[in-house]
Amino acid sequence: MLKSENHFLEIVSKAFPNTHKHMLVGRGDDCAVLACPAKLCLSSDLFLEDIHFRLKYFSPEDVGYKALAVNLSDLAAHGARPLGFNLNLIWPEYLDSNFCQRMLHGMADLARQFDIGLTGGDLSFGSNLGLAITIWGQSPERILLRGKCRPGDVIFLVGDIGLARCGLMILEHEPELSEKFPLTTSRHLHPLPLVLEGEILAGIESVKGLMDVSDGLVSDLPRFLAQDTGIEIDPDFPVHPEVKEYSQNKNHDPVIFSLTGGEDYALLGGCPPEQWPMIQSRIPSAWKLGTVIPEKGIFLSRKKIQIKGFDHFEKN
Amino acid sequence: MLKSENHFLEIVSKAFPNTHKHMLVGRGDDCAVLACPAKLCLSSDLFLEDIHFRLKYFSPEDVGYKALAVNLSDLAAHGARPLGFNLNLIWPEYLDSNFCQRMLHGMADLARQFDIGLTGGDLSFGSNLGLAITIWGQSPERILLRGKCRPGDVIFLVGDIGLARCGLMILEHEPELSEKFPLTTSRHLHPLPLVLEGEILAGIESVKGLMDVSDGLVSDLPRFLAQDTGIEIDPDFPVHPEVKEYSQNKNHDPVIFSLTGGEDYALLGGCPPEQWPMIQSRIPSAWKLGTVIPEKGIFLSRKKIQIKGFDHFEKN
Repeated sequence: MLKSENHFLEIVSKAFPNTHKHMLVGRGDDCAVLACPAKLCLSSDLFLEDIHFRLKYFSPEDVGYKALAVNLSDLAAHGARPLGFNLNLIWPEYLDSNFCQRMLHGMADLARQFDIGLTGGDLSFGSNLGLAITIWGQSPERILLRGKCRPGDVIFLVGDIGLARCGLMILEHEPELSEKFPLTTSRHLHPLPLVLEGEILAGIESVKGLMDVSDGLVSDLPRFLAQDTGIEIDPDFPVHPEVKEYSQNKNHDPVIFSLTGGEDYALLGGCPPEQWPMIQSRIPSAWKLGTVIPEKGIFLSRKKIQIKGFDHFEKN
Repeated sequence: MLKSENHFLEIVSKAFPNTHKHMLVGRGDDCAVLACPAKLCLSSDLFLEDIHFRLKYFSPEDVGYKALAVNLSDLAAHGARPLGFNLNLIWPEYLDSNFCQRMLHGMADLARQFDIGLTGGDLSFGSNLGLAITIWGQSPERILLRGKCRPGDVIFLVGDIGLARCGLMILEHEPELSEKFPLTTSRHLHPLPLVLEGEILAGIESVKGLMDVSDGLVSDLPRFLAQDTGIEIDPDFPVHPEVKEYSQNKNHDPVIFSLTGGEDYALLGGCPPEQWPMIQSRIPSAWKLGTVIPEKGIFLSRKKIQIKGFDHFEKN
């Protein structure tokens, strides 16, 4: 068991150095003092037990990793360079200090990878494990907004879609399939925050907008596109082989299954068609999702598709 | 009941404008983009149902107010000027949208008072109401650290101590006494963040350090003082009349009761003795707590006192 706040702070000190080139005053005071860029990106995400993750199949390291990864993805969606984060941690009595060490270890590994510092936070007991992170970083010079693409523009993605949703379904209902579909569960437990890809894209003048796909494309595409526009999905939409096999086994259409998604943490962007080859050469993992059309909706072979996305909060 | 995330966002939009002189990109995107000072203060605090507050005696407005107030106090402790905050909100199914509106109203009233913007956040269902706030503001030029006072220096306070602890005990165990001790319960429900006082103190060169008293003076004084020093409490220590009456009724020593405190959110500072009259003239509500001595510990009439402070986290 965690004995006291001081015990927790000792574990934190071992996992996270209290120095960083952007920390003028580190943890241990009422607040941190940071050397800040003039334009700061700031984002917050909750990561709660039995809402966003289950301890049944998340290792302590996975919990720490993913809580930070989903926040990093929000900065990536702006092409921002992450610099640090604060962690508000709700700790249940049934978890011990070993869990805490391993969880912070998973988080610190990812933080080290992007050279970001833990700049503060708070700790309290609570009934379930909960992590509330606020991340901050340097905004690119050019701020990328949504709703700027026009008909004819290419809509592209960086990263897979559909895998994480498959992974969640397998981990929840058929864990025995995990070995057969290893990438699906890995994407659910260990989403890859596309920070470097976001930074590169923000630096390319012809990229008209950027966001991360967290609620599934059917939910996120309408948020990305201008009010009066829609998208015609490319006919050679590349469904990932694991997603294809899993969804066909379940009698789901693989394309619809992928578009419904959820927790993909892929990057969604748009550009004029003549710039698309250049962007693809800069980011080889980018792929074309479709083309903006002057009619609202998501179209597949010219037919409007009607599916609902993923809302953590929506009730029946 | 809150029907969906969009329903919640509508309520937020009514309570908080999505513009602020420091918000280049407001809420509704993956992250906010902020116009930032070069030195930024950043702090986070949790405010959880049945840990930090009870719905039995907190109105919805009180919850929203206090969640933000305790974060403001952390910035005040650095003499920082608050500019904005992110709210991670955990929402239980048993609270309705009316509660949400009133809670955000209480928070927005306080935000307006200090002209700070809501710059983002996240929302999720959870088993109990929980608010995790990260607040940011402009650091003063001179960064005030702990541990800088030397023997002979005056240790002073701005704000009351002991009242909030009385209030908590009354609200928990003897609510019928609330009318007899109105200021105590008011201080527990509505602590006053001393933001302006903090800014003024940070601007006075001779103020050697500043922090806020949140865990009680017996816990916080050792954190404020240098390792090898202690404090002799002034003999005419001004115990608040309500605290005096309540603690005497309970056969507690009023001074010890006040020092044990908890959730006072008073500001604790230090200065050379010759500067004390000037500081008192600048902040008339400041009062002298005692004098730094070259011996570790808290002394009252030259006798070291042995009492434990308040640790939200400590187990028996």
